[in-house]
Amino acid sequence: MKTLNLHNSQIHFFLPDRLESEGSVLVVSDSQVAPLYLKQFLSQIHAPQVFSYILPSGEESKNPKELFSLLEYALACKLDRKSLMIALGGGVVSDIVGLASGLYMRGIDFYSIPTTLLAQVDASVGGKCGINSPQGKNLIGIFHQPSKVFISPLFLSTLPPREFNAGLAEVIKMAICFDSSLFSSLSSPQWVKQNIEEVIYKSISLKAHIVEQDERESNLRASLNYGHTFGHIIEQEGDYKKYLHGEAVSMGMVMANALATSYNGFSQNKEVIELLQTYHLPTHYHINHLSSFFDALFLDKKTQNRKIKFILPKAIGSYEFAYPQEEEIMEVLRDFV
Amino acid sequence: MKTLNLHNSQIHFFLPDRLESEGSVLVVSDSQVAPLYLKQFLSQIHAPQVFSYILPSGEESKNPKELFSLLEYALACKLDRKSLMIALGGGVVSDIVGLASGLYMRGIDFYSIPTTLLAQVDASVGGKCGINSPQGKNLIGIFHQPSKVFISPLFLSTLPPREFNAGLAEVIKMAICFDSSLFSSLSSPQWVKQNIEEVIYKSISLKAHIVEQDERESNLRASLNYGHTFGHIIEQEGDYKKYLHGEAVSMGMVMANALATSYNGFSQNKEVIELLQTYHLPTHYHINHLSSFFDALFLDKKTQNRKIKFILPKAIGSYEFAYPQEEEIMEVLRDFV
Repeated sequence: MKTLNLHNSQIHFFLPDRLESEGSVLVVSDSQVAPLYLKQFLSQIHAPQVFSYILPSGEESKNPKELFSLLEYALACKLDRKSLMIALGGGVVSDIVGLASGLYMRGIDFYSIPTTLLAQVDASVGGKCGINSPQGKNLIGIFHQPSKVFISPLFLSTLPPREFNAGLAEVIKMAICFDSSLFSSLSSPQWVKQNIEEVIYKSISLKAHIVEQDERESNLRASLNYGHTFGHIIEQEGDYKKYLHGEAVSMGMVMANALATSYNGFSQNKEVIELLQTYHLPTHYHINHLSSFFDALFLDKKTQNRKIKFILPKAIGSYEFAYPQEEEIMEVLRDFV
Repeated sequence: MKTLNLHNSQIHFFLPDRLESEGSVLVVSDSQVAPLYLKQFLSQIHAPQVFSYILPSGEESKNPKELFSLLEYALACKLDRKSLMIALGGGVVSDIVGLASGLYMRGIDFYSIPTTLLAQVDASVGGKCGINSPQGKNLIGIFHQPSKVFISPLFLSTLPPREFNAGLAEVIKMAICFDSSLFSSLSSPQWVKQNIEEVIYKSISLKAHIVEQDERESNLRASLNYGHTFGHIIEQEGDYKKYLHGEAVSMGMVMANALATSYNGFSQNKEVIELLQTYHLPTHYHINHLSSFFDALFLDKKTQNRKIKFILPKAIGSYEFAYPQEEEIMEVLRDFV
């Protein structure tokens, strides 16, 4: 049974049969995951008091109203500083629970039990949490590391294929930036299915290695945002409903690759598109309003004083930070209109 | 020109003529302070863009709605990670700005320029920030240290005497727990008026020394909450309108002293009451509903598993942490019914 240590977080690659807590526990799940796993999970918790709370599933829940409803419920349960929140669900659940537990009495512990591939390889590790605004994704949030993360591929058996593939988009992202041999392995969906534990472990290890060196994203950690600068705008333009996060990242990577091709002569966008299509991920985004798409870039968290920091691949397995001129970005975006 | 260093915070005992910032600046003030000082202050800021935002004055503003209105304004101003928020006002302003800047893009810098005595000696130093809930004060918040604090007694010339005295309540609190000679000096309002800079510096130094050793309030820092366990309930029962924070703390200290008298034989409550009355601070709270007052104790942040951590003076200048039995607390509270 493998475990990774990351700052104050322990990432366990198993699900415990029994979870004990000295203080009260509040398990937060969503309307999709709760019917499948909540009851069974609650029965495994041994604590003075156990409460549960169900969020509406979907990215739209990452808003101030849902956050404060959850916080008010926690207050009504009289959780104290020894209490524990547990996120049982996808990235939306762990993002909200990470933020709520970070704000509750200025911070109580939380555990994350990610039930989607996306949350397993991405949201549950690294401590970023937050909610969305009309102006963009995750613009309101904090860093709050879960004290424990439990990762089990068992949950993936009930995951719709579309969501599984969207999760793989983040694995592909890691492979493009950091690991060309992982990129090659991913070309066989058969191999991926059979070795999903290894794929998850590999992807998380790569992420943990980065986060360990730069938790607060002073520099290095920004590399994990490859595909996300464009991806966030795509998600937002689709009202967080039209595309899953991984699908938006998929199209965002293709756009970033087009910019890389212009900026540094990156020549493997075709291979990337092929791999993404293997998993039925969308690879072309049609920009409706070029100027508003362009303007939205300047609200990205990686933008400072109107300089946008892009993460651009140089070749499969390596990347660079780049600050292309506004005109060069615009030129590339015109191909997507 | 004195400066104290506390973690990543610099506490300066002067007001700069000119403030420079590389990124945009958002100055947040309130409806009471803004007419007096905002215009002049804005003219001293040199930054690419300078915005201002005015909160309604008063403790009632510490709610989710005001917090998110401010965050939305910051987003509309397109603040980025290099931007700076500045709190120009009392503790309410610095509490909200500390939280908003901590949440904005997972944390940007903020400066605090406290304009009340209370904020100068308390809220602006130490990094606690937050908002209130129907269930209690500051139950939702984070630790976020201002990168700079500027303290000037000039602001106190326009402070209503009632607010000045309420601020002194926090100084008296520090003296009772940590400094018997400060306690003696405070007995002369004349001396205090003439030496207010020294009083503020002394009080902040004592607080900084505590916070330095225990920023996250694992233990030692809880000593700063003397008078607050009861005080928070008093404030809440008055809807945060009837009493100023310092007034509630004044009554809370008298109640804590009564408990100390019963618990450890503390014998100087009379001296404390005399000093508080010198500054026209209220020293007796009338409890309307004993059981609801008692129950509210268990939602305090210092309560864990129904054990309430009290900070009780042993003598002027020294204190202890204590966990009195529920029956003993109830017995003391009966004297306030």
